[in-house]
Amino acid sequence: MKLHELGVRETASLVNSKTLKASEAANYFCTRIKALNPELNAFSYFDEESVIREASEIDARIEQGETLPLAGVAFTVKDNLWMAGAKATFGSNLYKDFIAPTDSWCVARLRELGAFSLGVTTCSEFACKGTTESPLHGITKNPWNTALTPGGSSGGAVACVSSGIGVLALGTDAGGSTRRPAAHTGLVGMKPTLGAVPNPWGFKDPNHLLSVIGQIGKNVEDVAYALHFLTATHATDPLSSPAFSNPTLLNDLYKPLAHPKVGYVVDLSLGLRIDPDVKQSLNQAVGTLANAGIEVESTQIPWPDMPSTYALLELQQAGLAHLYGKEWRISPEIFDPVIGEQIELGMSVSGKRIANLMQLRDSIHVSLSNFFKDFDFLICPTSPVEAWSTGQLGPAVIDGEKASPRDHAAYTPLFNYAGVPAISLPCGVGANNLPIGMQIVAPKYADSSLLNFSCAAEKILNKNLKSPMFNS
Amino acid sequence: MKLHELGVRETASLVNSKTLKASEAANYFCTRIKALNPELNAFSYFDEESVIREASEIDARIEQGETLPLAGVAFTVKDNLWMAGAKATFGSNLYKDFIAPTDSWCVARLRELGAFSLGVTTCSEFACKGTTESPLHGITKNPWNTALTPGGSSGGAVACVSSGIGVLALGTDAGGSTRRPAAHTGLVGMKPTLGAVPNPWGFKDPNHLLSVIGQIGKNVEDVAYALHFLTATHATDPLSSPAFSNPTLLNDLYKPLAHPKVGYVVDLSLGLRIDPDVKQSLNQAVGTLANAGIEVESTQIPWPDMPSTYALLELQQAGLAHLYGKEWRISPEIFDPVIGEQIELGMSVSGKRIANLMQLRDSIHVSLSNFFKDFDFLICPTSPVEAWSTGQLGPAVIDGEKASPRDHAAYTPLFNYAGVPAISLPCGVGANNLPIGMQIVAPKYADSSLLNFSCAAEKILNKNLKSPMFNS
Repeated sequence: MKLHELGVRETASLVNSKTLKASEAANYFCTRIKALNPELNAFSYFDEESVIREASEIDARIEQGETLPLAGVAFTVKDNLWMAGAKATFGSNLYKDFIAPTDSWCVARLRELGAFSLGVTTCSEFACKGTTESPLHGITKNPWNTALTPGGSSGGAVACVSSGIGVLALGTDAGGSTRRPAAHTGLVGMKPTLGAVPNPWGFKDPNHLLSVIGQIGKNVEDVAYALHFLTATHATDPLSSPAFSNPTLLNDLYKPLAHPKVGYVVDLSLGLRIDPDVKQSLNQAVGTLANAGIEVESTQIPWPDMPSTYALLELQQAGLAHLYGKEWRISPEIFDPVIGEQIELGMSVSGKRIANLMQLRDSIHVSLSNFFKDFDFLICPTSPVEAWSTGQLGPAVIDGEKASPRDHAAYTPLFNYAGVPAISLPCGVGANNLPIGMQIVAPKYADSSLLNFSCAAEKILNKNLKSPMFNS
Repeated sequence: MKLHELGVRETASLVNSKTLKASEAANYFCTRIKALNPELNAFSYFDEESVIREASEIDARIEQGETLPLAGVAFTVKDNLWMAGAKATFGSNLYKDFIAPTDSWCVARLRELGAFSLGVTTCSEFACKGTTESPLHGITKNPWNTALTPGGSSGGAVACVSSGIGVLALGTDAGGSTRRPAAHTGLVGMKPTLGAVPNPWGFKDPNHLLSVIGQIGKNVEDVAYALHFLTATHATDPLSSPAFSNPTLLNDLYKPLAHPKVGYVVDLSLGLRIDPDVKQSLNQAVGTLANAGIEVESTQIPWPDMPSTYALLELQQAGLAHLYGKEWRISPEIFDPVIGEQIELGMSVSGKRIANLMQLRDSIHVSLSNFFKDFDFLICPTSPVEAWSTGQLGPAVIDGEKASPRDHAAYTPLFNYAGVPAISLPCGVGANNLPIGMQIVAPKYADSSLLNFSCAAEKILNKNLKSPMFNS
């Protein structure tokens, strides 16, 4: 049985019915890790013995009569989250010897429900770069073509699922770090509503008030399983709210659609550039949805006056300067120079500029709220390009013109600023036969409707994008 | 009939049953305004004709068969909120000729439910000072003794209710601006959970992410009526959440208490000073609650390492610098010098300092969440002093030692930082026979339990503190 082809539901069902042991699954995935990871460099921490032990404990719970909704589901933990007893480095030399004292809430929760962790996956330093290359862990590769980057910052996470190592991956998303890597590897990547998944302890986040725990899987159902069980209210998380208690994501997943109205905005009304092949692939997918009876309208978003790319980037830079400015001035050589540059910029951002950006953030929220008075969902690109070569922050050219390093990432952060849920769904391939992502966005707190719609869209699009490594 | 002695419920009942006309109430209160306001200086905008017209429209709705939950209830609007067609100045010369283009959401909501507005009440410039004295509107006085300040920034609001002008007052509270003035005038002042009352348009707030709409009344029931009808979900308010839909505050108000455990922390575990007479009054009140069977324990709060007074004041300063820095540099003479000083300080606050404070804010939230694992409510002073003379930012001395201008205000802002609901309840008088407030704090989103407990505590304490003007 090719266990990496199974989804969450099938896996849990087999393990709960004792047809499959979690420890067998653990052995299976450890074998794949040992075979594939040397080429991918997706893990920053992997300890086979503890994986097998953890899986055996699940088997023991099943033997004792427990039924676990995520029984035997293999998952991975991004290196900016904590897995108790494992190295947690945030992709940085600053934490190269740090051992996580406890599980992050989301890790503990998945374990409690019967899933087991394969280890910790690579990310860029402080999860602040759109590729997965760090001074500490080197370069993480794309399972579709190891000369290419999987994007970032959750590059190790998507490399695992896309190569068939594990079933689910926990990422984070403060500006697209879950959605873009998912798009570049043919996966589904979900950024839930801000605060939906508690993250009450762990590393301090330079993207405070923007970052969420992301869910990565092969399909919408797997992602819905993960988010359903991770959505919760937690008193000590300042972003949490009673609105997240009693989630209904799984109950709603296969409901018939209630004639949603979808707004399609290919340049996000910001004049963003996109490679023609990517645009064509997305247009085709949108056409397929329309042909299936979904009401799609090309439209505009009434944004406030702001820069088109990463309007609030200085928030991240000031956050980095606050957290790491001192160490950067003392030992610049241990930092990723790209991150060092951001820290340096953050040192000179003024407090009144931050106050200005926090109010711009509200205006962005208001713009999207107004958009969602007319539409149930927004469709736009996740990334305007296919994956590019490792060693580069982004493609040199987009749509025939020279691109700056963040231009490839311009379609995702706005939805972090607004706190709304957004998902990337595979919708086809581009000129290089590499996966393209369709980004679907919903109003704040409408995570359940978003997954319901995405599940239907996935079925209509009927794309089965699997990397060569996955099929190996 | 002395209409100012009636509460919300009685008033609405009389008007709905056509025993009393809203226009009679309007005439009654306009007469009181004309008699008392010249001495108080509580109104920045009052137009008798429009008050009467608005009240007559309510009578017409009643005649047409409507039943309105707030029928004929007179309220006032703080000068940093908007009442359509009326001057809205934010206490500043910058806005001296600005006419509000529309009602603030909360004003429109009260009107829709049958209440009518008496006018706009004074506040300090940009609502950023703990007294109610501004270059534009001069000095607002305390109805208990017009040589004294009512505190601020919602000084006009409390002066109205405390002198028997109107039934309810809308204030705002970003650091105690509703609770402290209520304490200094013998009223109940409520700061709900951050985001509970939508405020989706209006002036930009220098205390962004801290400010809420406050409710001021003679007793807990009146405040509960106001907050019950103002609690709502609003898509374009970034702080809003589905957690605020279907409020149950009135339904829960008179429920028997479920044996709450109360933590009493007289110095807020920060070594804050308090005048001995105020402390004695508060201790007595806490003793009364304990004697009535409420479980009260003197305890500590496990705060993070931080300054004891206004730990996040630089957020306000940076906010002021962002909004008004340019005008301040051009025309310093039109600003309150105290506000100018804050703007100037805000000009030099760094972005990384703001990032630091935003994370300190989270730590404060976590500390309180941990406190609330052991206790249902926290009791502490609202203010450590009785009201002081006008013309001074605060009392010169607290507990026999020289006090800085913000020491009198140190007990309230922490609960804005944490976003939790907090109320000030009259609990007795001090050495000068002036009212003392007891502050009761609850976990985030527990506004309904807080009002339920406060209603019971009010009955047990059985204080009836009315100013000489109220009784006139």
